[in-house]
Amino acid sequence: MRQGRVVYGGAVHGCTPAAQSGVRLADGRIVAEQDVQWLAPLEPRTIFTLALNYADHASELAAKSSKEQATFLQAQRSEPVVFLKAANAVIGHRGLTRRPRDAEFMHYECELVVVIGREARNVPRADALQYVRGYTVGNDYAIRNFLEPYYRPNLRVKNRDGATALGPWLVPASEVPDPQKLRLTTHVNGKRVQEGTTADMIHDVASLIEYLSGIMTLSPGDVILTGTPKGSVDVRPGDEVVCEVEGVGRLVNTLVEDWTPAPR
Amino acid sequence: MRQGRVVYGGAVHGCTPAAQSGVRLADGRIVAEQDVQWLAPLEPRTIFTLALNYADHASELAAKSSKEQATFLQAQRSEPVVFLKAANAVIGHRGLTRRPRDAEFMHYECELVVVIGREARNVPRADALQYVRGYTVGNDYAIRNFLEPYYRPNLRVKNRDGATALGPWLVPASEVPDPQKLRLTTHVNGKRVQEGTTADMIHDVASLIEYLSGIMTLSPGDVILTGTPKGSVDVRPGDEVVCEVEGVGRLVNTLVEDWTPAPR
Repeated sequence: MRQGRVVYGGAVHGCTPAAQSGVRLADGRIVAEQDVQWLAPLEPRTIFTLALNYADHASELAAKSSKEQATFLQAQRSEPVVFLKAANAVIGHRGLTRRPRDAEFMHYECELVVVIGREARNVPRADALQYVRGYTVGNDYAIRNFLEPYYRPNLRVKNRDGATALGPWLVPASEVPDPQKLRLTTHVNGKRVQEGTTADMIHDVASLIEYLSGIMTLSPGDVILTGTPKGSVDVRPGDEVVCEVEGVGRLVNTLVEDWTPAPR
Repeated sequence: MRQGRVVYGGAVHGCTPAAQSGVRLADGRIVAEQDVQWLAPLEPRTIFTLALNYADHASELAAKSSKEQATFLQAQRSEPVVFLKAANAVIGHRGLTRRPRDAEFMHYECELVVVIGREARNVPRADALQYVRGYTVGNDYAIRNFLEPYYRPNLRVKNRDGATALGPWLVPASEVPDPQKLRLTTHVNGKRVQEGTTADMIHDVASLIEYLSGIMTLSPGDVILTGTPKGSVDVRPGDEVVCEVEGVGRLVNTLVEDWTPAPR
């Protein structure tokens, strides 16, 4: 059964899809979608995120990069490029993502998100999917012009408030028979801007679990954002971004101005 | 009152230092240190970690680096270099840190750790210390030869099991009147190998909170590992490493072989 988390009547509730419309709270009440606020379907522990895990997106970035960066990008095929995101950035379905005033190019990234279900250390690829609790949809925003030439960690690029949307549902692994055969699409204001398939991942879900569990112990609640195909378009306050992963879910969020005051 | 967390009699207990020796559990029992297992004094939410935040350590690294890296290192003074560590790496006082078989140079880093106490967004430097709940001691291990030339995130360098020791105590901010006047020392097998003072931080605690809260909302339980002074020595299985921050605590841990089997 797919599981979500919503706030209703002043409390957090686990929920499942209602038969007709709306959501069914864990206590059995059925409430309309407009009466709830969605949270991410889980509070992720460590958020692993893949850069350059779809060949077409890597080429797209290389074309926009310096020669040095392009050489680097080309060399990254053999080993996954993994960075961490902060829990601070997480929002749920229908959440708001802020565009900083000094962003020049800010783009969504539609991603299949893997949720780890049990402790994993040195798991071989052949067994890796047994460690998956389920999947959800992620939108991993990036501010391209905050990317710095080399070595500096990408904190400012990827770790803004609202820069990681997750949801709406945590879908059990049993409902996703093959995570490498899922279509990904993103629509901005109803127009399709990104389309791809998880079949085009350079390092597939099982390989990523093998790789990460070879470095450290993975624990329940750890999530892996598996990367995004090509199709980066700058998004602006007011834009509605819909990321969909076939059979997993349809994650909606909206860009807003960053209204927080600047430091004194 | 300083607070720790230990496992005793099959359960996790909050504890405080006992008047004579041992620890006092939250329920009033006093138990000997050898009868408990220490956990980190809190389960950190996001772990922010500073690279190159002491000028002498930055110079030490630059001396061992390629010309390209050295130029980069020199350029990093104006803005903090912050990366994230995974909760997966955290251990408590007297915990075990594994040295991977393929490590050539693995070193401790004694650090003052800041624990955030309330939500902070765009906090000016002058107010920043009001957002600190307290401090603890951190030992942020690094495997130097896993560092890659540029841009690639440092997952393999810093995110091993046991690579982040925290503890023993979470010391309330009220007991640390000036976080920029604390002596840091590390002893390996009783020999002093690292000595410095938080007065030499390039970006001080208040500046780091201003910087990070300008990027995203900080939340209770977020921690900042504030960097380390010079004095990197390779450590080996069997070595006992003691990191001490004046007035905050004395954190002991031991290196062991990485005994986990390699992937099939």
